[in-house]
Amino acid sequence: MADLFETHRALLTRAVEATAERGFWSAYPETPSGRIYGETAKQDGEAAFNARLGKPFALPGHPADRGTVGAETSPYGPALDIAYPAASVDALIAASAAAGKGWAAATVEQRVGVCLEILARLNRRSFEIGNAVMHTTGQAFVMAFQAGGPHAQDRALEAVAYAWAEMTRTPATVEWSKPQGKGDPLVLEKRYRIVPRGIALTIGCATFPTWNGYPGMFASLATGNTVIVKPHPTAILPLAITVEIGREVLAEQGFDPNVLLLAADAPGAENTKELATRPEVAIVDFTGSNAFAGWLRANLKDAALYTEEAGVNSIVVASTDDFAGMCANIAFSLSLYSGQMCTAPQDVFVPRGGIETDQGHKSFDEVAQGIAAAVDKLLADPARAIGVCGAIASPATVARVEAAAGLGRVVRPSLPIPGFDEARTATPLILAVDASETDTHLEERFGPIAFVVATDDVADAIARAAGAARARGAITAAAYATDDTTLDAAADAFAAAGVNLSCNLTGGIFVNQSAAFSDYHVTGANPAGNACLTDAAFVANRFRVATVRRPKAA
Amino acid sequence: MADLFETHRALLTRAVEATAERGFWSAYPETPSGRIYGETAKQDGEAAFNARLGKPFALPGHPADRGTVGAETSPYGPALDIAYPAASVDALIAASAAAGKGWAAATVEQRVGVCLEILARLNRRSFEIGNAVMHTTGQAFVMAFQAGGPHAQDRALEAVAYAWAEMTRTPATVEWSKPQGKGDPLVLEKRYRIVPRGIALTIGCATFPTWNGYPGMFASLATGNTVIVKPHPTAILPLAITVEIGREVLAEQGFDPNVLLLAADAPGAENTKELATRPEVAIVDFTGSNAFAGWLRANLKDAALYTEEAGVNSIVVASTDDFAGMCANIAFSLSLYSGQMCTAPQDVFVPRGGIETDQGHKSFDEVAQGIAAAVDKLLADPARAIGVCGAIASPATVARVEAAAGLGRVVRPSLPIPGFDEARTATPLILAVDASETDTHLEERFGPIAFVVATDDVADAIARAAGAARARGAITAAAYATDDTTLDAAADAFAAAGVNLSCNLTGGIFVNQSAAFSDYHVTGANPAGNACLTDAAFVANRFRVATVRRPKAA
Repeated sequence: MADLFETHRALLTRAVEATAERGFWSAYPETPSGRIYGETAKQDGEAAFNARLGKPFALPGHPADRGTVGAETSPYGPALDIAYPAASVDALIAASAAAGKGWAAATVEQRVGVCLEILARLNRRSFEIGNAVMHTTGQAFVMAFQAGGPHAQDRALEAVAYAWAEMTRTPATVEWSKPQGKGDPLVLEKRYRIVPRGIALTIGCATFPTWNGYPGMFASLATGNTVIVKPHPTAILPLAITVEIGREVLAEQGFDPNVLLLAADAPGAENTKELATRPEVAIVDFTGSNAFAGWLRANLKDAALYTEEAGVNSIVVASTDDFAGMCANIAFSLSLYSGQMCTAPQDVFVPRGGIETDQGHKSFDEVAQGIAAAVDKLLADPARAIGVCGAIASPATVARVEAAAGLGRVVRPSLPIPGFDEARTATPLILAVDASETDTHLEERFGPIAFVVATDDVADAIARAAGAARARGAITAAAYATDDTTLDAAADAFAAAGVNLSCNLTGGIFVNQSAAFSDYHVTGANPAGNACLTDAAFVANRFRVATVRRPKAA
Repeated sequence: MADLFETHRALLTRAVEATAERGFWSAYPETPSGRIYGETAKQDGEAAFNARLGKPFALPGHPADRGTVGAETSPYGPALDIAYPAASVDALIAASAAAGKGWAAATVEQRVGVCLEILARLNRRSFEIGNAVMHTTGQAFVMAFQAGGPHAQDRALEAVAYAWAEMTRTPATVEWSKPQGKGDPLVLEKRYRIVPRGIALTIGCATFPTWNGYPGMFASLATGNTVIVKPHPTAILPLAITVEIGREVLAEQGFDPNVLLLAADAPGAENTKELATRPEVAIVDFTGSNAFAGWLRANLKDAALYTEEAGVNSIVVASTDDFAGMCANIAFSLSLYSGQMCTAPQDVFVPRGGIETDQGHKSFDEVAQGIAAAVDKLLADPARAIGVCGAIASPATVARVEAAAGLGRVVRPSLPIPGFDEARTATPLILAVDASETDTHLEERFGPIAFVVATDDVADAIARAAGAARARGAITAAAYATDDTTLDAAADAFAAAGVNLSCNLTGGIFVNQSAAFSDYHVTGANPAGNACLTDAAFVANRFRVATVRRPKAA
């Protein structure tokens, strides 16, 4: 049997270094290129995806006492018509618990080796997973490939690297020798054993099933917990493929494949609450709404809970020396995946009296108009528009966009992307409001809905944006200013509100983007989430240390 | 102003190394000797303690809108009659929040320097604190000095070392440079800011106010949170002195002394629940009963909760090649501080058919009798007995001992220690029961109450002991066996139950003892507590990281 740990040791070592350095580093190439992934990778991935459609999804040995479930429909049109094994919560818990003993007894190297091999195989399947992500979430293909494939794999590797570092930061054995004056020292031999928590539940989301799901899943696996993956009922396939690959590696290495289980369910008949509150479930990772996270907080007893929730992300526009670049950058951030990213901005706070720019003074309306015009320009070509915006994951989002049009003065209407009639599409709706007149922009409105918000001045803009983050949560913030005083004030205010801040982005970096090994995604310090993907705190409490000590002759 | 960080940097560096090495290391000498602490340290400490009695305890600048409180009585007899400033929860929260801004803005070095200076001064005051611990908890003086002074300081230093390591494991700034094929790379400058959680509450216990209180308190302080110390109403003085010293150092360094507050209250009118559930309180450290910990779990919303609770600690006696040494070691563990340690064993599981020893076969009764006789021998001299057992902290414990006498066959009765009539004393009650007939030994019975429990065989003994740990919690376990097979089985069973195990202790190391920088006190993996004092997980989530990133010319 291959020693998977040795096979992947160099990658792990480099990943651990990268978590400490925090400069740019990526293990899995983000370019969907045949030169990297193989000449036929694109076609093979598409074919593999197409071969899944209209069939049962086989997971040999997986509990399936409830038959099958599956009701996924591509936001681009067709139903996927895939039937996943469905299991009762009792069966899932029993299988997971039974698999746990052998997994807990594995060495740290064995478990980490398995995780790294799973990631290697996931990477090779990135085109297939990209198609699966595209046709469950509505992401355009390139984003689905990148965020659902290599970027998600990077985030998973990051979690494995943190887990490895935490589990090996102290020796496995030590001789403890306490001097006793002139007498012989007291000597104990101590062995430190890594003890997992038990069963971990990963609750996936509808928009980034792998990117958001992998960190908790791999952190829990590496630290010896068994994992039940509960996908969102509209985005099962990417996680089902992941579970399939994981189970293959586990079985090959002699472990019970039920270390990794899929808890597929049907819309309206979700098993999430029943699963999460089972006493055997010791860890819950959740990505989704504040409301459900609140339910989990109120109803979990002893389980550790790691959440990424929703928030209201803001941009403060105080001044700029590149008005066109600023508008283009904001336009892209608003348009990318039609604002369905947890990192997408919703509110752009602009002083009521306008701002100074390289193009002279711009009134509030000119700023709003500038952003709207940049969106129009970005999305003028429908083929490009669909490549940026993708499709809308949920019909509820389209309805929300329609309803939102009355919430302010429409600067730019949301429109479908012409020529893609089967796809559910909506370009950004941009509304202008005045913070002195309404709070409507302070409510999270998921999807392509943005507010340009008039404030008294720059200080008011910063205070309102940071206040929204503190009260409603925020995962990102951006600020534009030509002076350091303003940027420093924004940095202080957003740091106090627990938000990561991007300043003066005008080029090829966007506030939405969060890079593994460098950016701490979600601070865990405001209502948008209680944990960060990924840092030491995200991993260190997923296992415990139990010591055995015994006297040793001095 | 002295650069406290530089003053103590070498100690910190050594402490960080020690947390990684986990061999024996201690920063603060445990011997209450004039050669170490100064010729007159003992008398000075006693005098300082005596000077506190019958007076108001002054904390300049501390909120005191409720006058004073204080009703401490020494378990050795006299009332302390000290009046501490009493503040409303509103006043405490307001003062703590107001102090928080400056403390959060301090550099990591400033905060860690302050913590280390507080510890240096606490160490010099170890005799005074030893007296304060003795006359609030009932510990004998040497234990009160050691556990309440240097050992508690070591635990605090350990927490500071972990905090330092976690806060500095990644760079404060980094240049992130992402290659763009033949084009210029995308370059961002990123600054990572340490953001505290807010207000931390440390809820002290009645028996080890400093040893159990310091880790959370110092971990929170070092990571930038303000701390409200809520002492147990019967053991305020040791923490009041600690707060006094802390406030002195804070004020000297230009910080608001209200970074560290004392929430003294009166028995029957505790402010704990009101404090813990205030939304401003982001961290709660608690040592005490499972019942109150359960209340906190049910009632805290977003605050991070770290608990050390109660459990049922067990010893498995399978065989021994040093029967006398085993009995003497167990006798000491049962007697030390009259079983009032969270690490004290309660149940000694022995096969019904007896065990093999270096003195030949010993029946169950002979094992029970051997332990009882060793207790008698240890405590034969009253002066030595009071030095080992100390006094009983709470009258409820004496009542519990009296009531427990009917729970089994009395192998050794509990008796007061003769000649110390003013002190509340009780030597160990030892009862014999059969596990096939009763579960009475599975209920935690705090104080000098021990059960020798007959089991079917060794495997049954291990299973019952580990089962008790899993169901009721346990902080320690011990096993005696001459064969590795039994010890390995015990190690597996107790590790799976999340308990630290000590094997074949016969000499000068006792199962009760937990050494800073080496032993992970409380695993956090069973109902005896959800956290460990101290590991990375205990510290890493007390702060968060907020990033500021901005483009940089390549």
